[in-house]
Amino acid sequence: MKLYGMTPSGNCWKPAVLMKQLAIPFEWVEVDILKGESRTPEFLKKNPNGRVPLLEVAPGKYLAESNAMLCYLAEGSAFLPADKYARAIVLEWLFFEQYSHEPYIATVRFWVKFLHKGEEWKDKIADAMKKGYAALDVMEKQLAQTNFLAGNSYSIADIALYAYTHVAHEGGYDLSAYPALKAWMRRLEQTPMFFPMQARAAA
Amino acid sequence: MKLYGMTPSGNCWKPAVLMKQLAIPFEWVEVDILKGESRTPEFLKKNPNGRVPLLEVAPGKYLAESNAMLCYLAEGSAFLPADKYARAIVLEWLFFEQYSHEPYIATVRFWVKFLHKGEEWKDKIADAMKKGYAALDVMEKQLAQTNFLAGNSYSIADIALYAYTHVAHEGGYDLSAYPALKAWMRRLEQTPMFFPMQARAAA
Repeated sequence: MKLYGMTPSGNCWKPAVLMKQLAIPFEWVEVDILKGESRTPEFLKKNPNGRVPLLEVAPGKYLAESNAMLCYLAEGSAFLPADKYARAIVLEWLFFEQYSHEPYIATVRFWVKFLHKGEEWKDKIADAMKKGYAALDVMEKQLAQTNFLAGNSYSIADIALYAYTHVAHEGGYDLSAYPALKAWMRRLEQTPMFFPMQARAAA
Repeated sequence: MKLYGMTPSGNCWKPAVLMKQLAIPFEWVEVDILKGESRTPEFLKKNPNGRVPLLEVAPGKYLAESNAMLCYLAEGSAFLPADKYARAIVLEWLFFEQYSHEPYIATVRFWVKFLHKGEEWKDKIADAMKKGYAALDVMEKQLAQTNFLAGNSYSIADIALYAYTHVAHEGGYDLSAYPALKAWMRRLEQTPMFFPMQARAAA
């Protein structure tokens, strides 16, 4: 399998860490979205939505959307429970991540760290952060009760939410009021074959 | 099962139409988010994220996130393929919907139709519409090739994307340049036991 991604992207890290943890070999192809490399005619043939990550599951057979990849790769493993309701709860967190978390946590980090708009977009960032903290509150409430998001077992829900939570501070988020969340991140980093997201030197 | 929802919400319509089409009986409980009914202490106990729809799959056992509900309800039916890659493509569309489509198509409709901010938020709306049209472009490209989004069979991907596409014009979107999209909507409305989203008189 080939994974097209950008190293400092949390969405791209998600399928990469899962494949490491499941011992699935893959080739990483670096795509720099800041240089427009995900919007070239050639790339748009692979993914008409022009985004990374993109997984080539077999030659010429593509899958987009990081969380769809997590489901695809985790199928049949302990990372995605077989029980119907338990599986639905994992999916609930995956959709929560893309709708209520990523657009505020990841986006603010992108604005601040990659576009350097921390000052210029101050008001817009403050608005987004209200929603970001609301998402973190939901996670904290759950993690005060269970070791992992979908219960007491590590699952792809944790991978999906860790991706941008652990770099939230790069956008200016202060996690000091989130003890359960912080303990969960440390717990997650202890899982077998965990590998950290690498910030590129240029970032 | 009990479905907590708001009638004019596309997200709430999704599990409702699927249950009709799968002949799963359910009770509908109206929740008016404009009156804050999804943010009461009582409702937050059911869903800490304070959103509808919310599905009570068994007494006291809740599931949030409309697209997680679609997966849960469609499991084992023709609406969610068993083949691993085909299933992943359905999920790809579900995540696309929540990340690249709903925040622009549904949100603009909400601003214009429910908050009456069409004039006041003109610039913000124009910005959002650019991304909304980009999402519609991706759908059009696919639907020019296949009868339904995930191939030639009707699936929960179609339900998820139809929800706000068919009311996009209420936010000011012009679909005249999207012939395949329009034909797809008509095709979808012909599926057995389809039932339309009802706009409440008050909306």
